[in-house]
Amino acid sequence: MITLSTRLDAVRGSAIRDLLTLTARPEVLSLAGGLPAADLLPRERIAEAAAAALHDPASVQYGETAGLARLREVLAEHESRRCGRPVSDVVVTTGSQQALDLLARVLLDPGDTVVVEDPVYVGALQVFQAAGAALHTVPLDGDGMQVDVLAQRLAAGLRPRLVHTVSSFHNPRGVTMSPERRRELAALADRHGFLVVEDDPYGLLAFDGTPPVPVAAHGERIVRLGSASKILAPALRVGWITGPAPVCAAVERLKQCTDLCTSSLTQAIAADLLADTAWFGAHLERVRTVTAARARAFCGAVAELLPQAGCTVPTGGMFCWLTFPDGTDTAALLPRALEHGVAFVPGSAFAVDATLPSSMRCCFASLPAGDLREAVGRLAASAT
Amino acid sequence: MITLSTRLDAVRGSAIRDLLTLTARPEVLSLAGGLPAADLLPRERIAEAAAAALHDPASVQYGETAGLARLREVLAEHESRRCGRPVSDVVVTTGSQQALDLLARVLLDPGDTVVVEDPVYVGALQVFQAAGAALHTVPLDGDGMQVDVLAQRLAAGLRPRLVHTVSSFHNPRGVTMSPERRRELAALADRHGFLVVEDDPYGLLAFDGTPPVPVAAHGERIVRLGSASKILAPALRVGWITGPAPVCAAVERLKQCTDLCTSSLTQAIAADLLADTAWFGAHLERVRTVTAARARAFCGAVAELLPQAGCTVPTGGMFCWLTFPDGTDTAALLPRALEHGVAFVPGSAFAVDATLPSSMRCCFASLPAGDLREAVGRLAASAT
Repeated sequence: MITLSTRLDAVRGSAIRDLLTLTARPEVLSLAGGLPAADLLPRERIAEAAAAALHDPASVQYGETAGLARLREVLAEHESRRCGRPVSDVVVTTGSQQALDLLARVLLDPGDTVVVEDPVYVGALQVFQAAGAALHTVPLDGDGMQVDVLAQRLAAGLRPRLVHTVSSFHNPRGVTMSPERRRELAALADRHGFLVVEDDPYGLLAFDGTPPVPVAAHGERIVRLGSASKILAPALRVGWITGPAPVCAAVERLKQCTDLCTSSLTQAIAADLLADTAWFGAHLERVRTVTAARARAFCGAVAELLPQAGCTVPTGGMFCWLTFPDGTDTAALLPRALEHGVAFVPGSAFAVDATLPSSMRCCFASLPAGDLREAVGRLAASAT
Repeated sequence: MITLSTRLDAVRGSAIRDLLTLTARPEVLSLAGGLPAADLLPRERIAEAAAAALHDPASVQYGETAGLARLREVLAEHESRRCGRPVSDVVVTTGSQQALDLLARVLLDPGDTVVVEDPVYVGALQVFQAAGAALHTVPLDGDGMQVDVLAQRLAAGLRPRLVHTVSSFHNPRGVTMSPERRRELAALADRHGFLVVEDDPYGLLAFDGTPPVPVAAHGERIVRLGSASKILAPALRVGWITGPAPVCAAVERLKQCTDLCTSSLTQAIAADLLADTAWFGAHLERVRTVTAARARAFCGAVAELLPQAGCTVPTGGMFCWLTFPDGTDTAALLPRALEHGVAFVPGSAFAVDATLPSSMRCCFASLPAGDLREAVGRLAASAT
């Protein structure tokens, strides 16, 4: 008999992950995944960067725990530009998921209160559950987290250590927090002494080419998480954290005993690609343009073929949120949809206090326009 | 004011890491590091494998949390051969340090008893401290962990959840657990219901080409940790864990929320190199031969130039343990040694209950023979 830690019991398995096993069948058009489109991953440019990096013996050796100096410089510049003020504390992590996990471990004691959005990014929920946090939820609307609801709860005595938000092009809701709410959230953090974790993997995927001004532009109590996964490639496993110096120092210290350092090779590749501003600008432009066209194709198909569903209008990122005002049970719909050769994630997979039985998350980024239209057609056929 | 988790207070900073900052000066010959020799890292073969891997779109995408199927197959074969019985449960981790951290988190609740060797691998100590474990130590001698001492403590009522051992070519002590003790440790695990964590990054670096038979060959309650860092390259950040199915399943589940997956690219590189048995055999042979010659050069220089020091006779791995019977205080010696242009790690950096004031760890693997002799000469000059 092997007994496992009781802490693990708190971690909800990912329904999405279990689902992806089912949807891996080649005949299924999957709107369920959260993977960047294979045809937009810059494989050849990465191969070029890998070949160049491997001329340097440092690219195969251990590196500093905080990250490759050159990459940290590029990221500090990039974040300073985004935030409109100098950002100097940067720790590179093994994807931004590691940043979330390390943050939770350095900031939280079991029982500490954490605010998450509802529906929630499941990867964040799992991390906070593993840390033994007491979770409170704040709902979202078309302008992102309902910061006024958070303000009311704070006024009523809620005292979170952390407030987590996917501020731009939310996963799964697709919405972006309004500028006013961003300012107000930063002000609340100052007033009530909590930290905001601004989880921002999608910000640069703004279809209009103008990434939203980060919450971190408006205050000092913001920890920002960034990722190369959606703008370069997931396999680099390069993420980063910027924020108050003591937080970054603690994350670096804990990272040392969790994986010593992130790969020197993939960091060198990421540094090369991000520092090549002409290439990176053109690459992002292509990703944005192609993804925006896919989003239009998807929403157009929904309006035409599945008019009973309400559909968020995507302005960036990868996800659209569909809601059926007729009360369609999306969890019950899923097996029928799979029979028709299309997959999505039921809203309930992202629900914390909410139930969201008549919603679903659809990823419009991974399939070409023709397949998206076909997928919506199959969805419509399964829903009638 | 930002308050950090109280759990972090338990984690001892790495004296070695702080020290490495001091020893990075080019005029210092460092015996302090634990890095594989730069001239033995197969950079060109890695470049070839990277180029080949990057023809496959899967190499830039997210991968399965448990690891790349092809790599897991190669590792399962490799571990089955090592252990002399079929090993099928393998989870790939971001270096074996991540395997240690995940293991501690899935197996331990705060206050659980963990046995470590004294002196200890500091990376393991930090992980168990971060998990809030109650640490008990067992001393080492020339035949590795004194399993008879452990047996006495168990008979007296000690009930550990885990017993951690670097069974082969110990870091920092350089010793290898004898075959009898390996069998006895596996039997104790069965009798008392604890798990052995057999941390084995150096086993394949046996100078005679015959890796010690793993503890895991003798029982079922052994979790084995392996690593590509010392046999291929640290920058791959590829480690692995094999052991009882429920442990591997729990590690995989927690890994999902700590970094989603290890890099598909570096896993593809590792799989390519490990599956190329002709190349891998020749590579290992070269690493072993060159490292064995360095070990001989180092020990010869100690016998000749620093005869007052007792020196373990290395039979593999990277480390030698020097002891000064005259009571030399190695921590006090270090600043003088640095003035003379040589660095080492004082024994106290690895001590848990022991104090080890007159010992030091020297890495013989990173420097060519001439530099090793010069380093020992400087050490002798600083010690007189």
